[in-house]
Amino acid sequence: MDFKFARRISCLKASEIREILKVTEKPEVISFAGGLPAPELFPVEEIKKVNQLVLEEAGTEALQYTTTEGFAPLRQWIAARMNGRLGTQFAADNILLTHGSQQALDLSGKVFLDEGDVVLCESPTYLAAISAFKAYGCKFKEVPTDDDGMIPVELERILASTPRVKIIYVIPEFQNPTGRTWSLARREQLVKAAMKYQVMVIEDNPYGELRFEGETLPAVKAFDPIGCVLTLGSFSKTFCPGYRIGWIAGDKKVIEKYVLVKQGADLQCNTIAQREIAKYLELYDLDQHIAKIREVYRQRRDLTVKTMAEEFPPGVTFTRPQGGLFTWVVLPEHINARDVLVKSIEKNVAFVPGGSFFPNGGHENTFRINFSNMPEERIVEGLKCLGGVLKEFIRNKLH
Amino acid sequence: MDFKFARRISCLKASEIREILKVTEKPEVISFAGGLPAPELFPVEEIKKVNQLVLEEAGTEALQYTTTEGFAPLRQWIAARMNGRLGTQFAADNILLTHGSQQALDLSGKVFLDEGDVVLCESPTYLAAISAFKAYGCKFKEVPTDDDGMIPVELERILASTPRVKIIYVIPEFQNPTGRTWSLARREQLVKAAMKYQVMVIEDNPYGELRFEGETLPAVKAFDPIGCVLTLGSFSKTFCPGYRIGWIAGDKKVIEKYVLVKQGADLQCNTIAQREIAKYLELYDLDQHIAKIREVYRQRRDLTVKTMAEEFPPGVTFTRPQGGLFTWVVLPEHINARDVLVKSIEKNVAFVPGGSFFPNGGHENTFRINFSNMPEERIVEGLKCLGGVLKEFIRNKLH
Repeated sequence: MDFKFARRISCLKASEIREILKVTEKPEVISFAGGLPAPELFPVEEIKKVNQLVLEEAGTEALQYTTTEGFAPLRQWIAARMNGRLGTQFAADNILLTHGSQQALDLSGKVFLDEGDVVLCESPTYLAAISAFKAYGCKFKEVPTDDDGMIPVELERILASTPRVKIIYVIPEFQNPTGRTWSLARREQLVKAAMKYQVMVIEDNPYGELRFEGETLPAVKAFDPIGCVLTLGSFSKTFCPGYRIGWIAGDKKVIEKYVLVKQGADLQCNTIAQREIAKYLELYDLDQHIAKIREVYRQRRDLTVKTMAEEFPPGVTFTRPQGGLFTWVVLPEHINARDVLVKSIEKNVAFVPGGSFFPNGGHENTFRINFSNMPEERIVEGLKCLGGVLKEFIRNKLH
Repeated sequence: MDFKFARRISCLKASEIREILKVTEKPEVISFAGGLPAPELFPVEEIKKVNQLVLEEAGTEALQYTTTEGFAPLRQWIAARMNGRLGTQFAADNILLTHGSQQALDLSGKVFLDEGDVVLCESPTYLAAISAFKAYGCKFKEVPTDDDGMIPVELERILASTPRVKIIYVIPEFQNPTGRTWSLARREQLVKAAMKYQVMVIEDNPYGELRFEGETLPAVKAFDPIGCVLTLGSFSKTFCPGYRIGWIAGDKKVIEKYVLVKQGADLQCNTIAQREIAKYLELYDLDQHIAKIREVYRQRRDLTVKTMAEEFPPGVTFTRPQGGLFTWVVLPEHINARDVLVKSIEKNVAFVPGGSFFPNGGHENTFRINFSNMPEERIVEGLKCLGGVLKEFIRNKLH
């Protein structure tokens, strides 16, 4: 059979992370590759209780089809949480539950993108957002980005000179992959530019609750008086990713369209997962749980940054994120991180080369380090080993 | 804000079923509308046990991210089950778990359809398949269909005269909405035509296990020597729909592309749901469970057909399906089922007008009756009431 796939298929490639993750299934591998939470922090005992309660109380309803929009009490909780933390003004009706926030990205492509439309993103940006949007045949323009977010004059210049920009995609808190956080001023300037050019902003915020220091900032959405910002969230990093429950929040007229495309995409999210999370939130203190996660990740961040400072050779720089899961490493320009990965995988240490995070290629001298998933002694062991590999590359001027 | 949605959004409309389902949430409504399984048959106690065991045995792994392809033992089980029942020859590698078989439809659109491509379907066909495919900008051609499936000369004629046919979509077992089942000969003829014109067949089979009488037939896939058939399945009707676990099975080279697009769409299915189903299949006898469902639905089918024969006025015809969840009603041509629905909803009886099941419109004198969800006394009460409404329409020649 001569399979005639859609044109989009030829532009897609397997997620480098997911392919590397297959290698890292071997227990001897020290992986800085995935964006995996620390599994030892999952509230297993609480979830066992919550499951039994949901099935006793809601019975068969918890196992039946439900509405596309999602379980109302959970949407209510999400709206209240965002309003309390992020300065937004959402009601339950502004929230659609999605199958992880990854699905919210896919649905965003479906709602907004025609073939040839343009998405503006940070440089670099989250690689699975690139694949989600690319499936709708869009092009990407990377907006020059510094430690405070997209640079306003550059954003304005690109908006003024680029036809068919439909979406500006940003991750303002502890960005994936760089760990950077947008300043307040930049958030406000972003909304002003989006309003001026009537472009939607998609604000992806899966890590915002994991702040180790400093104050929580208002969301980009908090500056939006006209409904041009959509905010994504997720329980994957504050609860458990295996549940696949995230959300998109925004203007009701837009959320209605998302509901429509979600109907065609998969009807609804897992019913019992929605109810178990809602029950957990009712019975337990999520803040206390998150405080525990934050403390562990903060220590791992500290240890990661300290060990990199000690073990990585001169000429290698990295970020010190205020929260989240990732730090970003830049090598001297002549070193390709994919070559480094080949060597380090031989020594059972994995990470994700940075090139995939740039939709238009280049920047092969970069990589991403996840610090949330490995226990402390393995972080040190892995980074020492990786430091050794990097020193060899620099010493031998390997290409 | 002037929202600039993608072109596809203007072609999509809310699922009539999902909108009607909102009305039917009132407990006094007797609903023949959804395709909802009988909730009283869900194995709640078994699921409670299975959840605890999975969390005790797999622990945090059951709550963590996992592979896009899905839990290997469950894919293994699905392959073996299909091979045993349907005459296929699948291995675990031929199976991708999807978020309900609805997601397999959406991913099929993404893998195969460019804007302007053509999907051939039965007339009528499953309405949420129409929305799933339509999101990729395709056109539909309805192939004239009788009680045995698509009529081969008509299919051949359309294939010969229509450019850009990419998919032939069929539901060969207890079709949604008509309840019809394809004959063996028609299955074989379908594959021959698909091979001749090098077009993919998507065989959707969510109801095949729910056969009340007669023998299980080999799948369309069983006649496919070249990999042109993809088969969809689901646990929604044999276990619980709330889990949202279905699958797509086919040639490895095609499944690889589905894995790729699923990565971008939502990364993976719910981890614990996959493991709970696998554990249930390990500990309990699914065949025994399905036998119970089948017996209940068979009785409801019998009662539905008997009551319609007694209560519906002359000039109204309906199918007597050998399995599944639905029967299909055809009214005299001058009666619009949407008008009937307005009257019957006033009397708290709901069903789905048939027009939505025809992608190119027309056939407004038809509707679908679900017989799986309501207990027997409500089936009788509801159909008597609906019969009364229909008699009034016929008596008064209402339009």
